[in-house]
Amino acid sequence: MELMKRSGWKSCCALLTLAIGTSSWGQSAAPDPLPSWNDGSAKKSIVEFVQATTKEGGPRFVPIAERIATFDQDGTLWVEHPLYSQLTYCLDRVPAIVKARPKLAKEEPFKTVLSGNREAIAKLPMKDLEKILAATLSGMTVDEFNADVKQWLATAKDPRWHKPYPELTYQPMQEVLKYLRANGYKTYIVTGGGQDFVRVYAEATYGVPPEQVVGSAGGTKFGYDRSGTPILTKEPKLLLNDDSAGKPEGIHLMIGRRPHAAFGNSNGDQQMLEYTMAGEGMRLAMLVLHDDAKREYAYGPAVDLPFTKVGAFTQSLYDEAKKQGWVVISMRTDWKKIFAFDR
Amino acid sequence: MELMKRSGWKSCCALLTLAIGTSSWGQSAAPDPLPSWNDGSAKKSIVEFVQATTKEGGPRFVPIAERIATFDQDGTLWVEHPLYSQLTYCLDRVPAIVKARPKLAKEEPFKTVLSGNREAIAKLPMKDLEKILAATLSGMTVDEFNADVKQWLATAKDPRWHKPYPELTYQPMQEVLKYLRANGYKTYIVTGGGQDFVRVYAEATYGVPPEQVVGSAGGTKFGYDRSGTPILTKEPKLLLNDDSAGKPEGIHLMIGRRPHAAFGNSNGDQQMLEYTMAGEGMRLAMLVLHDDAKREYAYGPAVDLPFTKVGAFTQSLYDEAKKQGWVVISMRTDWKKIFAFDR
Repeated sequence: MELMKRSGWKSCCALLTLAIGTSSWGQSAAPDPLPSWNDGSAKKSIVEFVQATTKEGGPRFVPIAERIATFDQDGTLWVEHPLYSQLTYCLDRVPAIVKARPKLAKEEPFKTVLSGNREAIAKLPMKDLEKILAATLSGMTVDEFNADVKQWLATAKDPRWHKPYPELTYQPMQEVLKYLRANGYKTYIVTGGGQDFVRVYAEATYGVPPEQVVGSAGGTKFGYDRSGTPILTKEPKLLLNDDSAGKPEGIHLMIGRRPHAAFGNSNGDQQMLEYTMAGEGMRLAMLVLHDDAKREYAYGPAVDLPFTKVGAFTQSLYDEAKKQGWVVISMRTDWKKIFAFDR
Repeated sequence: MELMKRSGWKSCCALLTLAIGTSSWGQSAAPDPLPSWNDGSAKKSIVEFVQATTKEGGPRFVPIAERIATFDQDGTLWVEHPLYSQLTYCLDRVPAIVKARPKLAKEEPFKTVLSGNREAIAKLPMKDLEKILAATLSGMTVDEFNADVKQWLATAKDPRWHKPYPELTYQPMQEVLKYLRANGYKTYIVTGGGQDFVRVYAEATYGVPPEQVVGSAGGTKFGYDRSGTPILTKEPKLLLNDDSAGKPEGIHLMIGRRPHAAFGNSNGDQQMLEYTMAGEGMRLAMLVLHDDAKREYAYGPAVDLPFTKVGAFTQSLYDEAKKQGWVVISMRTDWKKIFAFDR
């Protein structure tokens, strides 16, 4: 946070200088709401969208109540490589799960996870991953789960930058979130990740409160503990698979309004963008393209970028984006800086 | 709406007189936020709750982000007798459904509903009611459903007051909604009724936007119509049965925070109230008791009130409320007026 504040301060100073240098005397220039963006069509499309939809009496005006913007999380708001953070959390939780149920130590896939053999872990089939997710994301009360995630976030660090995961958010996207909110937009996270997991840090990390996090959601069961206190226990029952077609379905379930702007970075976001753009009036659809191996990672469609299962962005999605007029954000050329801690 | 405005104006005048009469010269008395409430313990508990939880630096202060209040709808915010409005909607929709699928005219329970025999309709078993709900609440797109409900609301009238259903909201509860919102509370509807149904009118009727309506929710299926436009189709699959234990489960799913205040009127609200009161800090739980046959209806616990399946409020819930310190609102003695159109 301190880093962000300092960076904001620097940007303000820079902008002030710029404003004094370029604007006529007596005119006040508003500070650039997107200082980490290079000038270009991506930045321009965001600014034009906000200006047009908030201009009272204008032809593209959108009433405040309908100003909904949805953001995918992994790969759109923060780093998703080499592995989704939540999956890392689940793997990190396995020792504690096994400690509580020692028999699991000899059972697969827990045995492999405990071995620490990264190659073997990476090869675990989906069926085994599901066992790990069920064991680490259900069976406890909602309060216990929140406390576990909080503790993990306070200590876990990513393998490349060696920073807590919440610091790996993209500064340019943080600016978009704030810019939209400053203009009356309600910002939602709509993630394939676990709703309960993301809610633990979304408010501190993105300024998005729990009630504006839509994610893959398991059921809970209301009951009472031994002292008769009401509790909610997390169940291994999937209510909403908030990916691909599940994203517009989840948006309808949890918000009940069609977004005016949607941001994603992979095939799992395509239906959310389609649903968003099918509404009347002005809409905005954007896709973050990871084409910056030096500052972050490079993966994506076609020719020069390697394909990946984590955050797959296929050529067909790229073609669809171009055909539909969705804006593809190039991390390499559109973003001045990636992280708040970048110099 | 016009009636409400006029009533508000009248109340303001009355209050002004009262304020001038009772407060010392030079002091300004705030207008009564709950003018349709008689002075008494129920009104007092609401005012004390709001004052204590919003007093900066006070021992019971609740930060704005955590100010969540949840309201049951049927019987708490509007009339639920003789039949839940949504059930009336479903029965009213049967002719249109049969017109589109003529074979149904000879099948039960559609045959009975078409007969108009109210006694026979009232005796339909749950299995048959479910068939009617499935036929009238699923199979269409979300947009088609919204349009149907909107049209019904514009024309349908209740059998007793002969007014559109949205006018049958309780004026005292409207005041509570506004009073809480004016003090930074986010007001949610948490209803056993259909989430999509209530969302159609919640904003106009209660000032509650669609994203703050939690209700029994069916799944939707994302797809494309013949022209390739993305659509969401309502499925006959229940995702959330938002009644009894389903209420705290739904609150967790859709809000992710524990309410600080909860309002209900029947056994289906008990778990929501328990869950609310189990949180730390100051909490408020209230139950509307329908004990006013003259101005509305009388049904409820014990001795002098007839038991009813629609909005059941049993003696055991009443005993629980007394034991736990939940506030029971007597419509007869606590409410000066029931409806905005009351003189």
